[in-house]
Amino acid sequence: MTKNNFDTSAIIDVLKKCLPAGKASIGLHEPCFAGNEWKYVKECLDTGWVSSVGKYVDQFEEKLAEYTGAKRAIAVVNGTAALHISLMLTGVEADDEVLVPDLTFIATVNAITYCGAIPHFVDVEERTMGLDPNKLADYLLEIAELRGTDCFNRHTGRRIKAVLPMHTFGHPVDLDALIEVCQKFHLELIEDAAESLGSSYKGRHTGNWGKLSTLSFNGNKTITTGGGGAILTNDEELGKMAKYITTTAKVPHKWNFYHSQIGYNYRLPNINAALGCAQLEQLPDFLIRKRALAKKYIDAFSSVAGIRVFEEPAFAQSNYWLNVLMLEDNCRKYRDDVLAATNNNGIMTRPVWILMHKLPMFSNCPKMDVHVAEDLEARIINIPSSVFL
Amino acid sequence: MTKNNFDTSAIIDVLKKCLPAGKASIGLHEPCFAGNEWKYVKECLDTGWVSSVGKYVDQFEEKLAEYTGAKRAIAVVNGTAALHISLMLTGVEADDEVLVPDLTFIATVNAITYCGAIPHFVDVEERTMGLDPNKLADYLLEIAELRGTDCFNRHTGRRIKAVLPMHTFGHPVDLDALIEVCQKFHLELIEDAAESLGSSYKGRHTGNWGKLSTLSFNGNKTITTGGGGAILTNDEELGKMAKYITTTAKVPHKWNFYHSQIGYNYRLPNINAALGCAQLEQLPDFLIRKRALAKKYIDAFSSVAGIRVFEEPAFAQSNYWLNVLMLEDNCRKYRDDVLAATNNNGIMTRPVWILMHKLPMFSNCPKMDVHVAEDLEARIINIPSSVFL
Repeated sequence: MTKNNFDTSAIIDVLKKCLPAGKASIGLHEPCFAGNEWKYVKECLDTGWVSSVGKYVDQFEEKLAEYTGAKRAIAVVNGTAALHISLMLTGVEADDEVLVPDLTFIATVNAITYCGAIPHFVDVEERTMGLDPNKLADYLLEIAELRGTDCFNRHTGRRIKAVLPMHTFGHPVDLDALIEVCQKFHLELIEDAAESLGSSYKGRHTGNWGKLSTLSFNGNKTITTGGGGAILTNDEELGKMAKYITTTAKVPHKWNFYHSQIGYNYRLPNINAALGCAQLEQLPDFLIRKRALAKKYIDAFSSVAGIRVFEEPAFAQSNYWLNVLMLEDNCRKYRDDVLAATNNNGIMTRPVWILMHKLPMFSNCPKMDVHVAEDLEARIINIPSSVFL
Repeated sequence: MTKNNFDTSAIIDVLKKCLPAGKASIGLHEPCFAGNEWKYVKECLDTGWVSSVGKYVDQFEEKLAEYTGAKRAIAVVNGTAALHISLMLTGVEADDEVLVPDLTFIATVNAITYCGAIPHFVDVEERTMGLDPNKLADYLLEIAELRGTDCFNRHTGRRIKAVLPMHTFGHPVDLDALIEVCQKFHLELIEDAAESLGSSYKGRHTGNWGKLSTLSFNGNKTITTGGGGAILTNDEELGKMAKYITTTAKVPHKWNFYHSQIGYNYRLPNINAALGCAQLEQLPDFLIRKRALAKKYIDAFSSVAGIRVFEEPAFAQSNYWLNVLMLEDNCRKYRDDVLAATNNNGIMTRPVWILMHKLPMFSNCPKMDVHVAEDLEARIINIPSSVFL
């Protein structure tokens, strides 16, 4: 095998060398319960505090705020719910447009539609796989105009209210550049940090830069609560409102049920928060192990033709949530061969999500030129990245 | 004390007699984990299957369908989510009206607004505390007109698409009478059976009569999953669609992420379903105990002035989820005294929910005369009803 000939079996060999031997199948990202999970969950069962009553929700929120540096963290039922409420509290209304990367998981875009708003797809850049702030700035110069304090799309006539970047596979987008764009065009910033717990941009945790930001603790994430998510914010008032609206907007009273507005039942059950507390204690160790695995992959694939392992951008420290094999330009045609060969060999891999503008319900949404997203869609392969590998 | 003089301390005495001695405080409805809860939850932790992968979600759905007699049960993240999707799949659209009892928990009504539809408040009857089908029939004769296959509100011009009764505290509404109204006026029936798992109407389980119906397994319910709910239906196609749309509408594929429509992340995590499986095994025993407690209350309060314990309607077998002390007409003025005295004595009690039309966000919604709901609101007090009491 030389650096010049693409060889699928060489990829399998290198993956096998990096991964534990003797396992019939290796998942993409499986949870690791090596801490106080049993203890805390059992306590919930023994005390009967599994639901909305119990100490773990409060503890989980405090520890999340402490870890991320956000003033307030609000635990919710999953990342999608966190996105929905964050968009709503940012002031996104029906018929507003929200700028969002074309390359993202469906939840980011679905949440925009829950507000009655319209996704407006933005291209990504290769060094982060996330939203490209410079390309966005140029694009807005062309299509946007400011009227008073609001930004409007000249073509559709609709208000553009917010930008919702997603830190792809844990790698932060270029937040300083993006914040500059937001300020210039009077756009609110919400970060979808579902994949980037443990990742920082220029030394400060992701999810700490937007007006509101969101985390996910789904079973495939760096830490899991079974299903769960959180809203982060540095605005105390928005934090209070997020807690209120995600718990049915009930005004506290010893026995009366008075709700002052339409609210949501998005609270995280205590038993799931207990799992989260135990997982969060192990996060620093998980991150060390994930970076070690990424390093191992980077080194091992350095001599393989036609492929490289994605490395964190210079301004970031990434959690390497899901490692990425990036096919070189002229090898994109082998993507499905690699996917088939790896999966057939018990090594779970997958391509990146189909671009959002290609899905039938979003095919008529506004979008800029997205050729980098198109390009990456054909070249990304995710490989096993569990912390215990 | 005679049957003629209202005496708050007599109520406290009778409650104390019915309830276990020596507890500093007795909650309204606390969960009971006396079965395989820990075994199943531990299995989730040991295998790492806590989230969307794992056998308990399937098992829980199968057992729920078997128990309720519904063709299909779909486990979701809570009862509110179940309501939202059931309304949507029934065809409720923006600007439709949905007939709903004025006396219900906020989730029933919030879910209508999530579809962009308008709640239209209906009165209840005293024998069920639920929607009054006869009063509704008279009202619709007055305000509704059929155009083609649809029913319209003559006053607002809006389509009335569905009726959404709620089986209050586990007591079924008069479903036969209600179904007759639905047929006559071309309305879809959705049952909010959040409180009535284990309750049957004329020998058939509640949640089995509507096009779609919903259950809740919140921490205060007869069985709990921490937080959770389910959609029930006898329509296989709607059941499939409910599963699909509550799991992000992803088309199954070995690795591709293709979503064919806007979906929701409403799936129940496996760890919560594990709890549900263990709880469901104990449900028959729970129901026996709950009926025994209700009987004890009914007997004990039979000699107390000004108050009676609510008994199931003749056509129903109720789960007696939350027992109700019903103040007699001339004793309604003592409601807050009883609430204060019981809560101050460590016996948790509460009034029924504030009527929906009195909440600011629903104050302009259409409604019929609701004087029975107004009457009951002033007379209902819920008393402790956990299965272990």
